[in-house]
Amino acid sequence: MNTFGNNFRVTTFGESHGPAVGCVIDGCPARLALSAADIQPLLDRRRPGASPLASARDETDRVEILSGVFEGKTTGTPIALLVRNRDVHSADYETIKVKFRPGHADFTYQEKYGIRDFRGGGRSSGRETVGRVAAGAVALKVLAEKGITVKSRIVSVHAKTDPAGIEQEILAAKAAGDSVGGIAEITATGCPAGLGDPVFGKLDAAIAGALMGIGAVKGVEIGDGFAVAGRFGSENNDGMTQMGFTSNHAGGILGGISSGQEIVARIAVKPTPSIAKVQQTRDIHGNATEIAVGGRHDPCIVPRILPVAEAMLALVLIDAVLEEEKYR
Amino acid sequence: MNTFGNNFRVTTFGESHGPAVGCVIDGCPARLALSAADIQPLLDRRRPGASPLASARDETDRVEILSGVFEGKTTGTPIALLVRNRDVHSADYETIKVKFRPGHADFTYQEKYGIRDFRGGGRSSGRETVGRVAAGAVALKVLAEKGITVKSRIVSVHAKTDPAGIEQEILAAKAAGDSVGGIAEITATGCPAGLGDPVFGKLDAAIAGALMGIGAVKGVEIGDGFAVAGRFGSENNDGMTQMGFTSNHAGGILGGISSGQEIVARIAVKPTPSIAKVQQTRDIHGNATEIAVGGRHDPCIVPRILPVAEAMLALVLIDAVLEEEKYR
Amino acid sequence: MNTFGNNFRVTTFGESHGPAVGCVIDGCPARLALSAADIQPLLDRRRPGASPLASARDETDRVEILSGVFEGKTTGTPIALLVRNRDVHSADYETIKVKFRPGHADFTYQEKYGIRDFRGGGRSSGRETVGRVAAGAVALKVLAEKGITVKSRIVSVHAKTDPAGIEQEILAAKAAGDSVGGIAEITATGCPAGLGDPVFGKLDAAIAGALMGIGAVKGVEIGDGFAVAGRFGSENNDGMTQMGFTSNHAGGILGGISSGQEIVARIAVKPTPSIAKVQQTRDIHGNATEIAVGGRHDPCIVPRILPVAEAMLALVLIDAVLEEEKYR
Amino acid sequence: MNTFGNNFRVTTFGESHGPAVGCVIDGCPARLALSAADIQPLLDRRRPGASPLASARDETDRVEILSGVFEGKTTGTPIALLVRNRDVHSADYETIKVKFRPGHADFTYQEKYGIRDFRGGGRSSGRETVGRVAAGAVALKVLAEKGITVKSRIVSVHAKTDPAGIEQEILAAKAAGDSVGGIAEITATGCPAGLGDPVFGKLDAAIAGALMGIGAVKGVEIGDGFAVAGRFGSENNDGMTQMGFTSNHAGGILGGISSGQEIVARIAVKPTPSIAKVQQTRDIHGNATEIAVGGRHDPCIVPRILPVAEAMLALVLIDAVLEEEKYR
Repeated sequence: MNTFGNNFRVTTFGESHGPAVGCVIDGCPARLALSAADIQPLLDRRRPGASPLASARDETDRVEILSGVFEGKTTGTPIALLVRNRDVHSADYETIKVKFRPGHADFTYQEKYGIRDFRGGGRSSGRETVGRVAAGAVALKVLAEKGITVKSRIVSVHAKTDPAGIEQEILAAKAAGDSVGGIAEITATGCPAGLGDPVFGKLDAAIAGALMGIGAVKGVEIGDGFAVAGRFGSENNDGMTQMGFTSNHAGGILGGISSGQEIVARIAVKPTPSIAKVQQTRDIHGNATEIAVGGRHDPCIVPRILPVAEAMLALVLIDAVLEEEKYR
Repeated sequence: MNTFGNNFRVTTFGESHGPAVGCVIDGCPARLALSAADIQPLLDRRRPGASPLASARDETDRVEILSGVFEGKTTGTPIALLVRNRDVHSADYETIKVKFRPGHADFTYQEKYGIRDFRGGGRSSGRETVGRVAAGAVALKVLAEKGITVKSRIVSVHAKTDPAGIEQEILAAKAAGDSVGGIAEITATGCPAGLGDPVFGKLDAAIAGALMGIGAVKGVEIGDGFAVAGRFGSENNDGMTQMGFTSNHAGGILGGISSGQEIVARIAVKPTPSIAKVQQTRDIHGNATEIAVGGRHDPCIVPRILPVAEAMLALVLIDAVLEEEKYR
Repeated sequence: MNTFGNNFRVTTFGESHGPAVGCVIDGCPARLALSAADIQPLLDRRRPGASPLASARDETDRVEILSGVFEGKTTGTPIALLVRNRDVHSADYETIKVKFRPGHADFTYQEKYGIRDFRGGGRSSGRETVGRVAAGAVALKVLAEKGITVKSRIVSVHAKTDPAGIEQEILAAKAAGDSVGGIAEITATGCPAGLGDPVFGKLDAAIAGALMGIGAVKGVEIGDGFAVAGRFGSENNDGMTQMGFTSNHAGGILGGISSGQEIVARIAVKPTPSIAKVQQTRDIHGNATEIAVGGRHDPCIVPRILPVAEAMLALVLIDAVLEEEKYR
Repeated sequence: MNTFGNNFRVTTFGESHGPAVGCVIDGCPARLALSAADIQPLLDRRRPGASPLASARDETDRVEILSGVFEGKTTGTPIALLVRNRDVHSADYETIKVKFRPGHADFTYQEKYGIRDFRGGGRSSGRETVGRVAAGAVALKVLAEKGITVKSRIVSVHAKTDPAGIEQEILAAKAAGDSVGGIAEITATGCPAGLGDPVFGKLDAAIAGALMGIGAVKGVEIGDGFAVAGRFGSENNDGMTQMGFTSNHAGGILGGISSGQEIVARIAVKPTPSIAKVQQTRDIHGNATEIAVGGRHDPCIVPRILPVAEAMLALVLIDAVLEEEKYR
């Protein structure tokens, strides 16, 4: 399933070292002003090659709108977005052609499909998120017109929470041929009460699925998350007054439906599995071997995951907003 | 959306104090031996009235198979499962007719629909999970035939981890007119490698959505979950040998696809919001007021959430198993 | 797939001689006044035992609302509708346990599932349409509030078009142990322009799929249908004026989207395959044999198909109406 | 909805005079040998500019595979197919910018979206079918490996059935500034028994929806279609013997499930609405006016609809085949 959403449906395609990556958006409202300039900034935040903290792969990631926009406005038909791959060093990947990288999808893709595009991880590469981010940028523009904004921040990297400590941890890991994990927070403000559907279509369920569906994410919390496990109900319930709520432990969602408060989610991001340090692994013939992963990799994916997480939250919200409008 | 799954599709219906709750299963393989006796045990584990730790509502929860089974075997047609509601004390709910219970879906349902069945929480009641558990029992039977088993356990309640401490915390909270939260773990063994789809259909994304879609769940972890945020890649990667993996930090899923290891998920469960203690709230006319929630409520939902969580994991797995068989 | 629709989703269940038939409606707007009395009349029109022209099976077909309605109004949650089967003569079906009835689904169900509920045709029986008609009645009520009405009529039976001739053909076929086919027309008035989606979600495509999905239907036409194949464009195009259209050859749909004109569809209904006349067939062991189908069957299904066809058109239209409101 | 299928999912995009048309295929089995050379022939049969009977628009329609294929084989990931538009004469369309063409989607798109890409009909153009045909070619390759082949033929044009008469009718209509309709037949051989799902997922329902979803199609028949309306059951039932069936009035489908016989469908194709003859219409300001449609149009769409109809039947069949394999 490479399609996300029921109302604002996004289908992504493309591999790390194939000709292109991109997406098709089906269900975007008509008459929205839209140009590549609306999409490029979020792509630029996701782009590699821009910081010593990230992969050195140099991609300009220029997006082309192939359809669905006429005289600068959406027409209600599918919006196809295309980004060509450029800085492809496939030679870097001869090693992983025959060896499974620990912590990677190499082994499971091979088991599932009996074939895999090993160049740069193929479809399992973080490069797949270009399509999500491009679509998310369009969703964010629609949401902005409805007064909804999405933001994100790094909560911690390798348990450090201040910017200087975070940068130091990342550079130290890089120098050691290693990588580090962290936690990020994504929030949405301006959501009306009433978004989300009972039972299987709960807004928090959709958010959890969307965020856990980003590679490297191993945990998702809504509101106070795991902290609620150690509380009394009398501590955890958000009281109500004439004016609204007295607290927001729930993270803006009650019974799977938005309450009108700020929506708050956090994700646990694992350390990048591609590291230069030698690791124990298996080759495709089943023999034990060792691997030191070359190529250009991020020592910490937390900074670059932020625009992806914003995009995914935006896709969940636009879908819920359109669903809700059906019954207004 | 009251339907779950793409291949083994479950649609649930029913309110806490309506005539009945139940589900329709569409896509169950034909020729599976099935009777009510296969479904009743999991329902019995979910049933209230069975322990001093749980709600005193006394429901026998006898399931009736309305369709899809002929001479003791499934026919491939929809299986409708029905459980009549019996011990309904709607009079208990006159208070919540006019006052929103903090931490509950009362407010958000009212905002969304402009109407709500306030009796026992209506559709937002935990009683809705009867349909899920009934369907989950069928899924578990299909999975068992494929060698896959699902289990669960309480990890902690209000930070206590031993059975005696857990029981003490629950009874103390009950005595105080309060409630407590906790953490549960759900595991699946016997899953073949290759389950789950890349990108939006990742197995961990589906599990996260399914578990976060259970009322009261505020966080989901796969494998080591939030702990990975404080690790180096060299610590977190699961090495491989000829025989398999050297550890299971990943919780049995790599790149969204099962690796063949045990699948491990944990959920954070909030303290039941319905408590006897007085809380600050608002009435349906917008006035500030106070509420002490009467009725029969669980002081801790963690024990009764276990069969529900097993059911949801089973529904995710059977869906992935059937999807995978399409391409074998 | 026993679920129909994307927005107003109907899942049906039940076999001809099982305990019950029914449906679950998910996505019905909240606050609609609804009681069994709104559903019963359409079920009564579908009901057998009411006319010498139809099957003698005597079913009262009383519908029970199991969920989704509170104090006489829909709540936005799933509406489960149940009809118990009563007049079940399973003994009639011992013959078809071992012999495939020509023109029936006996053979294909056996091939597909390796098992079949042969009693009365099981799930392939026309009795399955009880769930569709019950759901259609709810859809018709929602549509009526939006000014949309659906009607149907018999165009011809065995090439006769006047009521007396039609009745005569049916009774003559019955007397001869045979059956006859015919054509029915279904129309909808009051539909706004703009319903239906381009490409795969065309309104006429949805109508064609919905009507062809009724057992016994072998052809579907929109507007002038097959007659257009013999025309010039200058004859077939519907001209426009300031006031509207000068004709309606298109049947109210242009480019898959409603034009605001009356929507017109026609269906070809095959003669009931269950006939008393001796036919050549095969038994389940693969041997050639003969069969004379006993039991109580309709000599012509056209009169009883009308409420089913109205229901299906209503389900298509309510789905399109809700889809459209998303973008208003 | 610009996505077709549940298992082999095709999303198309693009407008007649935009930068490109194409599709994304999600769910194609892995390890299928695939190159542009497998897709090009079916696109060439659909291509304009190749015959005096068709539009003079000159498009080479070269397809580029953007993803999902590695070293000549599919990998199980989405296959994006791109065709750039080249011979675009947008100037031809200044007239239709302000006037609605009778029989066209101009009016309904404007009503639905409040905006339309009027250049060449935008998304409602037959050019949209490039994406369908490209996807259909991939489906046909998968089907061929399973022994299933799809063919089509012209049954009649303007009531003529022989090739010479058909060509004469088309050229005469063209000379008169008019157009003509016709009937086409699409057949599939080699389908195993058991394809298609009961009730709403019937194979004939899926075929009817797929074929009626092609622009210009106004009627669909399965097997003997409308002819069955004038028959007795004893005439219409297909008898069975030890060897198979004695006839194929049903067109290879019983109870919505394939019987193993040849699948036969016919479509009624309306005369192209774009004609040079003067017609009565309305402008976008609501005033009555006249229109003579310029540009390069097909005087009869029946010949060029054949590859599109084959593609759609192939998409239905591959979807059903994959669905069926789930339960093997």
